[in-house]
Amino acid sequence: MEALDYHAEERRKAEFNLDEMKIVWAGSRRTYEISDRMARLVASDPVFRKDNRTMLTRKDLFKDTLRKASHAWKRITDLRLSEVEANMLRSYVDQPAFTDLHWGMFIPAIKGQGTNEQQEKWLPMAYKMQIIGCYAQTELGHGSNVQGLETTATFDPHTDEFEIHSPTLTSSKWWPGGLGKVSTHAVVYARLITGGQDHGVHGFIVQLRSLDDHLPLPGITVGDIGMKFGSGAYNSMDNGLLRFDHVRIPRNQMLMRVSQVTREGKFVQSDVPRQLVYGTMVYVRQTIVSDASCALARAVCIATRYSAVRRQFGSQNGGPETQVIDYKTQQSRLFPLLASAYAFRFVGEWLKWLYTDVTQRLQANDFSTLPEAHACTAGLKSMTTSVTADAIEECRKLCGGHGYLSNSGLPELFAVYIPTCTYEGDNVVLLLQVARFLMKTVSQLGSGKKPVGTTAYMGRAEHLMQCRSEVEMAHDWLKPSVILEAFEARAVRMSIACAKSLAKFSNPEDGFAELSADLLEPAIAHCQLIVVSKFLEKLQQEIPGKGVKRQLEILCNVYALHLIHKHLGDFVATSCITPKQGALANEQLRLLYAQVRPNAVALVDAFNFTDHYLGSILGCYDGNVYQKLYQEAWKDPLNDTVVPDGYLEYIRPILKQHIRTARL
Amino acid sequence: MEALDYHAEERRKAEFNLDEMKIVWAGSRRTYEISDRMARLVASDPVFRKDNRTMLTRKDLFKDTLRKASHAWKRITDLRLSEVEANMLRSYVDQPAFTDLHWGMFIPAIKGQGTNEQQEKWLPMAYKMQIIGCYAQTELGHGSNVQGLETTATFDPHTDEFEIHSPTLTSSKWWPGGLGKVSTHAVVYARLITGGQDHGVHGFIVQLRSLDDHLPLPGITVGDIGMKFGSGAYNSMDNGLLRFDHVRIPRNQMLMRVSQVTREGKFVQSDVPRQLVYGTMVYVRQTIVSDASCALARAVCIATRYSAVRRQFGSQNGGPETQVIDYKTQQSRLFPLLASAYAFRFVGEWLKWLYTDVTQRLQANDFSTLPEAHACTAGLKSMTTSVTADAIEECRKLCGGHGYLSNSGLPELFAVYIPTCTYEGDNVVLLLQVARFLMKTVSQLGSGKKPVGTTAYMGRAEHLMQCRSEVEMAHDWLKPSVILEAFEARAVRMSIACAKSLAKFSNPEDGFAELSADLLEPAIAHCQLIVVSKFLEKLQQEIPGKGVKRQLEILCNVYALHLIHKHLGDFVATSCITPKQGALANEQLRLLYAQVRPNAVALVDAFNFTDHYLGSILGCYDGNVYQKLYQEAWKDPLNDTVVPDGYLEYIRPILKQHIRTARL
Repeated sequence: MEALDYHAEERRKAEFNLDEMKIVWAGSRRTYEISDRMARLVASDPVFRKDNRTMLTRKDLFKDTLRKASHAWKRITDLRLSEVEANMLRSYVDQPAFTDLHWGMFIPAIKGQGTNEQQEKWLPMAYKMQIIGCYAQTELGHGSNVQGLETTATFDPHTDEFEIHSPTLTSSKWWPGGLGKVSTHAVVYARLITGGQDHGVHGFIVQLRSLDDHLPLPGITVGDIGMKFGSGAYNSMDNGLLRFDHVRIPRNQMLMRVSQVTREGKFVQSDVPRQLVYGTMVYVRQTIVSDASCALARAVCIATRYSAVRRQFGSQNGGPETQVIDYKTQQSRLFPLLASAYAFRFVGEWLKWLYTDVTQRLQANDFSTLPEAHACTAGLKSMTTSVTADAIEECRKLCGGHGYLSNSGLPELFAVYIPTCTYEGDNVVLLLQVARFLMKTVSQLGSGKKPVGTTAYMGRAEHLMQCRSEVEMAHDWLKPSVILEAFEARAVRMSIACAKSLAKFSNPEDGFAELSADLLEPAIAHCQLIVVSKFLEKLQQEIPGKGVKRQLEILCNVYALHLIHKHLGDFVATSCITPKQGALANEQLRLLYAQVRPNAVALVDAFNFTDHYLGSILGCYDGNVYQKLYQEAWKDPLNDTVVPDGYLEYIRPILKQHIRTARL
Repeated sequence: MEALDYHAEERRKAEFNLDEMKIVWAGSRRTYEISDRMARLVASDPVFRKDNRTMLTRKDLFKDTLRKASHAWKRITDLRLSEVEANMLRSYVDQPAFTDLHWGMFIPAIKGQGTNEQQEKWLPMAYKMQIIGCYAQTELGHGSNVQGLETTATFDPHTDEFEIHSPTLTSSKWWPGGLGKVSTHAVVYARLITGGQDHGVHGFIVQLRSLDDHLPLPGITVGDIGMKFGSGAYNSMDNGLLRFDHVRIPRNQMLMRVSQVTREGKFVQSDVPRQLVYGTMVYVRQTIVSDASCALARAVCIATRYSAVRRQFGSQNGGPETQVIDYKTQQSRLFPLLASAYAFRFVGEWLKWLYTDVTQRLQANDFSTLPEAHACTAGLKSMTTSVTADAIEECRKLCGGHGYLSNSGLPELFAVYIPTCTYEGDNVVLLLQVARFLMKTVSQLGSGKKPVGTTAYMGRAEHLMQCRSEVEMAHDWLKPSVILEAFEARAVRMSIACAKSLAKFSNPEDGFAELSADLLEPAIAHCQLIVVSKFLEKLQQEIPGKGVKRQLEILCNVYALHLIHKHLGDFVATSCITPKQGALANEQLRLLYAQVRPNAVALVDAFNFTDHYLGSILGCYDGNVYQKLYQEAWKDPLNDTVVPDGYLEYIRPILKQHIRTARL
């Protein structure tokens, strides 16, 4: 007997081979296979159940997280999983935990900033989790401005120790994940002071808790910072606060790869180039962009499948109503997000290549591409995470009322995702860095210095400043060269316009401060161009299957044209396109939506999410939404009793009172 | 000794009289005084404490809500509060409860749709809360499409009863607030069937639970639908599900003001005009717009105050860092929202007038303005709630990392607010109604039928289609006539462009379906014009104090010009303004931000929120943010013990294991 599948008809409509698309989405057959295996491993294990998560108290949720982390570690060691497999398994557990920071921040910090000797001492313990570490940078009073951190690490030459201290309330470490209740160690960022001189912020390995009884060591005040956005979500994490009262650590626990303090207390810079740190930054941001595509894909998968189940209005002669996915208003909101998920996936893939490229250049002492790589990754981190955060909420709205239920999965996805817009660089601060780089690039255009990488198009500024789009018919908008030129022209014109406004200020920094809000706009235009151009490049690569290629072309065009429509003011005000051409782009966009429609469900099936990972009744694979909603409702604790707790004290007395409510 | 006030310096900067502004915000001195009294009454009562709300389990939160509702009722009756006072008190309790639906939906439904006899029977019991009612319309399978509801009410002439029945799973009532655990009665919407004929959807009063023991009556299945978005927030409400298994009610429990079923089972329409229901609709939507301004004001108040406390970067010579409110990037995101709060406040005030006007006309059997009033309120509900929902999240982001903490107040405000975009008409569906009305208005322009009310400007279409903005300098954008004409021209041109596209379709409905996404745009333009024009009208009224008037002028200009910048594509592509004029608008906007800056904190003080109501550490009146955050953190249950529950089972074994992790 065939299994129930409300989406069977939708799936039959698909005009491409699903398995081929799954591999394209995963990046390679091998990644697809590992990912699929890990996802099923987690989904089939009852310990990793998460459907009751939003109903747990903070304490129970936290204990549940400890249990899952411990079980995950057991599976990883028992099955002798590789690092790649272990990372995937943890991500499919899909519950923020102290292990994220241990593996994702503590170990990389030691690897990146520790000397060989320090790595040899600390990493084996960390790899075996004999110590558990976190990354203590952010303070109550300082987030973005790392150089403003207040915690001090004062060298005492008499004892050969650093004294770590929190001089003010605002210097309390605040936010580090895993710090609140679990970590035994931390990489602590503090102002290095030797001989009364401040050498700026450096990292120090500090033990926080006893390895015997887990109690905080003397001088250490540590705790959890309290509830965060939503139910479930990041409340599984013990984001912590930390204060030091003259805590002493040996000198060799300062991370000394780049700078050292000698036995005598002398501050020395090593010959290791400081730019090395940028390599890590590119890596971390590439991960964030890749995660953005995944979070966006989850939201889009839920909204797409539910939009195919949900019917509303349009019944004729008692027949079924119209699937909401057939409404143009729904398509015009949903399909650009579907296209964005694919677009972000491919730009994330390209960032992996960029990371390899940057790493190789660094090893060869070639720092020439670093500023561009830095700006590009900053911009893509900012743009993709901002879009994804908004898109998750948009997908929730696309699910109508039922999207508001926790078991739609979207509330928790939103709650757990949004901090990405703030951490690893606030998105607005990052865009300003992009803008600064663009202004610098513009200012050097006349100097003969050729813009590289993602800014190479600025080398063709002269042409791009005066070109006119050749679009005459809607379908002209399907040509890659037409799309690319429009985005390049818009980006370069907006940058140059800002540069001209800046030039009116005698002090460039005053100008930058005054015009900063306007400067965000060319930065966004530049980032959108990168994503569009990487999507177009992807289409030039070998893609298995004609059907798959055709779908990706459609999605690429949807991505580009929806941006033209959304930012019409940019394109028209800079005369890159005429209002008429803008209207044609919109017309073409509507035609593309009709082409996406029959493939929509299959395009989200290609993400290969298990029902466990997706965690959404509205998005479940078989589409049996209403029955599952009804069954789930009864599991709410409020339904444990027919008459609610509190009836006798608070409801019955109201109903039974005899009042004279004169004025009401 | 002066009380601690970190904002004292900011407050001294204000260039207007705060008390005068408070009264302008409240609408009148009398409303201000009542509101102030009720807010303090709630804030000073320990039963209404809500700072621990996000930490409660669903069951505890619900019981807490019952307790508060019961206490509020006691206060209302003991103090013999007026209806206005009682409503305010309930709103300051700020915790969704079954009483909201009892007073806000159940009673109005009986008043609006019940005969005099029915009102005399049911209302006294409802007013005394001897019965508690809810509004059971939405079903699992039907929300927006009310006419598609599946629940049946079949008349049985043998017994003179209706049989209420849920024929399918999707016909289960789903969402009604207060239904899940509390309501004794409901107004149930069901398809009326007499003699085998379906007469569409009508309302019926149905008792759900015994007044003796609160158990559901025979044939009734009722329960809570489960957890919703966020912690705290709407989880205090028992949104419910309800199924009927052939439940019988007397014939006289059909609400029969507009239609009746006779003893013989004959369906009769009364001569009461059906349009009466629109009066209620205008009233409800006016309330929603007024609530939008309030929710937006709360978010803006938090973000503004915290932006004045938070400092980051820009320290010179060891001096204090720059207040983040001084950054143009912050101002360009925050001040338009501040201006929007005031703009929505005033358009809400105007809607109160509109409601009175409509009611008076209805009483005089004048239905001429109804379609316009209906479209206008639909659009304003949609636009103000969508903007507010997004703005709350934007304000959260403006608070940086700390905005993610529950005690910032913003997560819960967001969670509790967003359903407003869906209930009482999905915002997209409502905009389509506006668009339909605009298209109809355009089509009648040639017929000599003069557009009325908020569409009166379309009567000047000929002029507006060809006018050119006269702006030559940035400050030209401060002229009310210039602003108004730009918005009118844009709205009319977008409407007419859509009408032309529609005209190309032989079947108008096909055109409407195909172009529906594009039709949303003139609808939004029209709504924004209404808000701008009502703000400008407000400035023509008597305003106490020159300082106050000056501030409102600035805010009005900020509101209008930020929209021009945001929707530049609309204005430029329709040739209402040139790109150059768009740039001048943006330039003027920057100058206006500088004028708002010194008044920002006082402008949010004018909302007169108590710290209790605001519920935000970041937004607290005295600005003592960091100390309060630190103190609050320790109250999290996770900090009850130094070593967390689960340490022995799940952490210690990891730390103490002796593993060989070959591959890691």
